[in-house]
Amino acid sequence: MQVNDVVAYIQADRDRFVADLKEWLAIPSVSGDPAHDGDVRRSAEWLAGHLRKEGFPTVEVWETPGHPAVYAEWPAEDPDAPAVVVYGHHDVQPVEPLAEWDTEPFKPVEKGDRIIGRGASDDKGQVFFHTLGLRALLAASGRQAPPVTVKLLVEGEEESGSVHFADLLRARRDRLSCDAVVISDTTMWAADVPSMCTGMRGLTEAELTLRGPEGDLHSGSFGGAVPNTLQAMATMLAALHDAGGRVTLPGFYDDVVPLSDEERELFARLPFDEDEWLRTAGSSRAAHGEKGYTTLERIWARPTAEINGMWGGHTGPGGKTIVPREAHAKISFRLAAGQDPRTVQEQFRAWVAGHTPAGVEAEVHIPGGGVRPCFSPIGSPAVKAARRAMERAFGTEVLFTREGGSGPEADIADILDAPLIFVAVGLDGDRIHAPNEKVEIPLLLKGAEAAAYLWEELATALR
Amino acid sequence: MQVNDVVAYIQADRDRFVADLKEWLAIPSVSGDPAHDGDVRRSAEWLAGHLRKEGFPTVEVWETPGHPAVYAEWPAEDPDAPAVVVYGHHDVQPVEPLAEWDTEPFKPVEKGDRIIGRGASDDKGQVFFHTLGLRALLAASGRQAPPVTVKLLVEGEEESGSVHFADLLRARRDRLSCDAVVISDTTMWAADVPSMCTGMRGLTEAELTLRGPEGDLHSGSFGGAVPNTLQAMATMLAALHDAGGRVTLPGFYDDVVPLSDEERELFARLPFDEDEWLRTAGSSRAAHGEKGYTTLERIWARPTAEINGMWGGHTGPGGKTIVPREAHAKISFRLAAGQDPRTVQEQFRAWVAGHTPAGVEAEVHIPGGGVRPCFSPIGSPAVKAARRAMERAFGTEVLFTREGGSGPEADIADILDAPLIFVAVGLDGDRIHAPNEKVEIPLLLKGAEAAAYLWEELATALR
Ligand SMILES: [Zn+2]
Ligand SMILES: [Zn+2]
Repeated sequence: MQVNDVVAYIQADRDRFVADLKEWLAIPSVSGDPAHDGDVRRSAEWLAGHLRKEGFPTVEVWETPGHPAVYAEWPAEDPDAPAVVVYGHHDVQPVEPLAEWDTEPFKPVEKGDRIIGRGASDDKGQVFFHTLGLRALLAASGRQAPPVTVKLLVEGEEESGSVHFADLLRARRDRLSCDAVVISDTTMWAADVPSMCTGMRGLTEAELTLRGPEGDLHSGSFGGAVPNTLQAMATMLAALHDAGGRVTLPGFYDDVVPLSDEERELFARLPFDEDEWLRTAGSSRAAHGEKGYTTLERIWARPTAEINGMWGGHTGPGGKTIVPREAHAKISFRLAAGQDPRTVQEQFRAWVAGHTPAGVEAEVHIPGGGVRPCFSPIGSPAVKAARRAMERAFGTEVLFTREGGSGPEADIADILDAPLIFVAVGLDGDRIHAPNEKVEIPLLLKGAEAAAYLWEELATALR
Repeated sequence: MQVNDVVAYIQADRDRFVADLKEWLAIPSVSGDPAHDGDVRRSAEWLAGHLRKEGFPTVEVWETPGHPAVYAEWPAEDPDAPAVVVYGHHDVQPVEPLAEWDTEPFKPVEKGDRIIGRGASDDKGQVFFHTLGLRALLAASGRQAPPVTVKLLVEGEEESGSVHFADLLRARRDRLSCDAVVISDTTMWAADVPSMCTGMRGLTEAELTLRGPEGDLHSGSFGGAVPNTLQAMATMLAALHDAGGRVTLPGFYDDVVPLSDEERELFARLPFDEDEWLRTAGSSRAAHGEKGYTTLERIWARPTAEINGMWGGHTGPGGKTIVPREAHAKISFRLAAGQDPRTVQEQFRAWVAGHTPAGVEAEVHIPGGGVRPCFSPIGSPAVKAARRAMERAFGTEVLFTREGGSGPEADIADILDAPLIFVAVGLDGDRIHAPNEKVEIPLLLKGAEAAAYLWEELATALR
């Protein structure tokens, strides 16, 4: 197959591709709004129909107790070829505040090189480039089937918490057995700086309650002679970080996969303007964090402890000179590659037990098991193969990023026992989850091109 | 004069005394409730009439922009004799929750040796023993006038913040010129442990706001790389005390009048059950405070910093993984003898400026000038004279206490430029400000007896 043939196919198909995508985008598949339940189903069925037209031999709508997912499989000719699951989602975020949209969110509009509409980037557009890429590959190579078995799994509940997704993966584990999972639901660094994400941080949350006297006490009668729960809370939480900005839970960093020198160098080559980033953060002030790491390293590859909320005592207008009976804090930990939320939860409980001052009782409430981090080393065969595919499509070096946030991706890797590869062409400027969401058509076409090369690269790398 | 004559006079007068007091207690002079404005005025006029009947040559109702005060003067025969102001108040606390009263709060009831009703102890009963004491002194000694000029000042707004009292003192400073001020609005240690208060702590309050980014940030995108205002608040407030429980504001203790060995010894002789006190505090847990001081010393004679309230970030149900834009705390300082609220306010501002981490902006709001502490050394002539009077009445050693709370008493001492003496017979168990307030009639009569001796003792001591 000639690279030019793939490009030519994609260019020739551009208008049909855009027209089809716009048809799908017109379906308001807002999974978080029960009024749109029927639309989410329509979206699944529209996609299933589309995938059949695109030639997938197997297309199924998979029911869940919530919204349906769509599954499509195109087996490789060689039964021993590797299998790859491609993950995306067909549901979208709500569109409020509607007044801030310049066009109607579910009447997608083509403006110059962009499509504007809810879901254009997150995630319908990014699901869509895979089918175009697969067709381009088959057409350009004259094959009847891809060199790996492609298993497309398009969930319908991502924007409402993927509540039934892990169960679905477990129930369908046999059908979904694979050698790698391609996630197409993230972003690149910039239109002219193509990049691949290699991991997301995990998350675990806790609520800490400190109790002192049975009721608020008068500070004239008791102040200075009984413990003050808010003072105790401040003292405890101040000790949660050391002077170098490191989290002080014993063992906290033990399981963290260290950043490799190569990854740090590649991070450092991303054009990053810290002042501009601080402006984005609405903070004209200082960056701050763990000593010895850059801002990007801190966000992507280092674990943190954050106080998300804290309250206690008199919080209304005016003064009230009390010694407060209770103090509360909500704390969350972003977890780096290698860490396990359950382990951190136990470390936090132990730390609280060891740091609670006399005269105060502490209670730790941990809601749920947390979210595991996910990570694929940049030297792993799957990541290297995907990077080659991206570099062939973009014609330039592809750098690496990670995501500081947390998602269900670790579940996919764990349940399917396969490495993750993040192949995506969204941009941070796509205004996903916000009014006037858009996608850059040329980037979707580059995504299709990368997807075309990806199956060849993975067929070799994973064999 | 014979001691027995004073006692005999008081005993003979007991029933009339109780009947008169009950008449006064029946007037619901709740200064904090505008519905009772007329009652507060009636209370003032009833008292003025009573004082005229008791023989005071000068009795005036002093108007304020709020509720009226009552002033009565009985000049000494000797125009060079010292003058003493006696302070009390004729207004009372609200009576809610009414359902918890066993009798009607403004239908005073005599039960055994007690009078039950709002104001019985705080403060009408304690104002009242002075007139009985004065009459007993005159009757027993055969004098026509007391050995000091007695200036009785009974305010009408104490329970609603004494808002016009300092202005009244300033406006009437000439009429109120005096050599000592007797405060009859506190308590003794116990019915069988007579004691005198020698001071009250001062108070100053502050609100601290820390600001970081313009809005809450997503902890996935920014956590660990920008300052967390709640973490900054915890770190700052943790540093407000050192490991020994001392407040760390530079200079904070510089002006504190140290406890004398004698006062510490006398405090230590008060029968104090710390476990029982902790139970009273609704805290079965540990006492806690500045190292090197007992609980009573901490409450009465040592300054403190208390966090009264703290809030910021997500405080509702569930989790929200944000880096919070703001953190707030309300902090108050109880001040010991010698400290000035204005000085501590400046110390706190300077401390905040020196402790605010980079990337965070701090704002300190200080509502008002605070309350100054007041203190009369136990070795001062006025205190010694009053102690002798109390010891003659109670026939036993009188110990010393202080009050951990704060009141307008320092204003009186400052504006009138005279030392304070606390002569009072209320008990902590009198349920002042609560349902079923009561007073012990035998203690009121002891108070009258002490008041009878007080003028003689002060005439000698202050000359
Ligand atoms: Zn998405
Ligand atoms: Zn009072």
